[in-house]
Amino acid sequence: MYTYDMEELYQITVERLEARGISLRSIAEIVFELQRDYGEITMDQCVEQVQAVLKKRETIHAVLTALAIDRATQEGHIEEPVASMIREDQGLYGIDEILSLSIVNIYGSIGLTNFGFLDKEKVGIIKELDERKGREVTTFIDDIVGAVAAAAASRLAHSNDGANPQSIQ
Amino acid sequence: MYTYDMEELYQITVERLEARGISLRSIAEIVFELQRDYGEITMDQCVEQVQAVLKKRETIHAVLTALAIDRATQEGHIEEPVASMIREDQGLYGIDEILSLSIVNIYGSIGLTNFGFLDKEKVGIIKELDERKGREVTTFIDDIVGAVAAAAASRLAHSNDGANPQSIQ
Amino acid sequence: MYTYDMEELYQITVERLEARGISLRSIAEIVFELQRDYGEITMDQCVEQVQAVLKKRETIHAVLTALAIDRATQEGHIEEPVASMIREDQGLYGIDEILSLSIVNIYGSIGLTNFGFLDKEKVGIIKELDERKGREVTTFIDDIVGAVAAAAASRLAHSNDGANPQSIQ
Amino acid sequence: MYTYDMEELYQITVERLEARGISLRSIAEIVFELQRDYGEITMDQCVEQVQAVLKKRETIHAVLTALAIDRATQEGHIEEPVASMIREDQGLYGIDEILSLSIVNIYGSIGLTNFGFLDKEKVGIIKELDERKGREVTTFIDDIVGAVAAAAASRLAHSNDGANPQSIQ
Repeated sequence: MYTYDMEELYQITVERLEARGISLRSIAEIVFELQRDYGEITMDQCVEQVQAVLKKRETIHAVLTALAIDRATQEGHIEEPVASMIREDQGLYGIDEILSLSIVNIYGSIGLTNFGFLDKEKVGIIKELDERKGREVTTFIDDIVGAVAAAAASRLAHSNDGANPQSIQ
Repeated sequence: MYTYDMEELYQITVERLEARGISLRSIAEIVFELQRDYGEITMDQCVEQVQAVLKKRETIHAVLTALAIDRATQEGHIEEPVASMIREDQGLYGIDEILSLSIVNIYGSIGLTNFGFLDKEKVGIIKELDERKGREVTTFIDDIVGAVAAAAASRLAHSNDGANPQSIQ
Repeated sequence: MYTYDMEELYQITVERLEARGISLRSIAEIVFELQRDYGEITMDQCVEQVQAVLKKRETIHAVLTALAIDRATQEGHIEEPVASMIREDQGLYGIDEILSLSIVNIYGSIGLTNFGFLDKEKVGIIKELDERKGREVTTFIDDIVGAVAAAAASRLAHSNDGANPQSIQ
Repeated sequence: MYTYDMEELYQITVERLEARGISLRSIAEIVFELQRDYGEITMDQCVEQVQAVLKKRETIHAVLTALAIDRATQEGHIEEPVASMIREDQGLYGIDEILSLSIVNIYGSIGLTNFGFLDKEKVGIIKELDERKGREVTTFIDDIVGAVAAAAASRLAHSNDGANPQSIQ
């Protein structure tokens, strides 16, 4: 039986992402791109939002599961025909996008539309993960990174709104 | 242009629910029913969780929209054939359940399964709202009350887990 | 009590969309834009897919409800503060996007990402509906049109794949 | 590169379910329980609906992925701490329920509420799968079976409605 507190699980999550070459900063850069047109923001704010998203239990579970499935597939421990669908990131497979919803859903509909946008217009670290395909299995984790960035952007939008609480607009 | 801060919007939401005969306590009673088998809980804890769910922007928007659609339908301001589908709470209409997802989704999958359960096994205030049909339009608000209760139960389950942070089980 | 068969409901849906200046062809043009890079397609195929999506019960309910809410809001029959949130298409309102999910969800994850993309990059008739704001309430229907186009694009992608059933790629 | 047509994928899916002791008939029995109160139905109709759900691409992907993750976990090929979360079917893990949504979502909101109900009131083969825990990893597949049953029940409700197309009630 394994016992971890949430802080330990967060540390493990950050370390495993970094071991795959995915820094919090690289995710924060996508958040910056998504939100730069909607007001003054700094990279520090974006990093903070990414950290806040990664501290949620749902996010931790989704990130660790995505990394585990990608790795098990790469090492040949997932049965056919699913292994090929994952390895080739087949367009109609769709299970990777569904897994991402567990993160995106908790931040409301802005998270959702940002996620859809990133899935079509791959930028920054998402593009890099996509280009590793063939050598490495990144099918689940590239969508999850998009989901974390989309959720962080949504969180930033909500918190900026909170800065002017006297208005609902 | 209307300007409200979140605290004001929360107050309006609670008052409008009470004006429809839906007290926070009646929602908390459903939460108690849902969670009583999973550990020591008090009605005060349940009320607190309902309040926390009702303070979220997504919940406020969903509750106020549901009340507004039910009222507009009752007063004859919604066009046919949608008006009849809403008034008769037609089983395949489904838009009322979709609206509830905006609340349920933000609390992860426990919220979802509790919501599905309540939709089939109507209890307490949900049953009462269901029985008012014919005299009053409660099609949207009865699902929304189920969603708030399901979300509050999910929040309670997560927070109890947080009480023993040394374990992930 | 109102009785309609599905064919009648479909006809009503198409007529109401056209009465708002939204032709099936204008939705099909968005489908064409979304899918043109993924293979040989014709406008006729796109129109067919839009029709197929509009014949589904979930779509009919969502379209008719969206049109009814927009109209009730425009005519002053929705209470404040929701009326202002809808009229101004407030960025954090989010209920319009949730309603669209009832269409998008039934076509799997490609539908979802296309919908997210269209919500950010408004094109064609969606852009036109967005520009009518101020004079007309189009808050719900512009998202619903995006959802129908996204679903039709997803359907087209699935059906083209079906054309080469010997391959899962 | 693996190539299968949809018919082959369906056959593989049915065989793999049976190899785990899950017959189509055992899933159909749950459908029968869910729908028996809503009108005359036969077991044959329920089996037909289960088959129709299992022929959808989204269902095939979800079933095969669930079986593959359960097996990889059982054989020790999934990393910690995710392996323990899956093996112990930890209440707050939630990724298994999310995967089920890829099936449930495509059948509208009745599917969703039936799924939530089955997740709380485990019946028939779902209960049996739940009881195998400890000896076998069935964490993902027991939710997926619930999702298939919920979707088939939803399909049945929609098709019965289609039998009286002159009424929307």
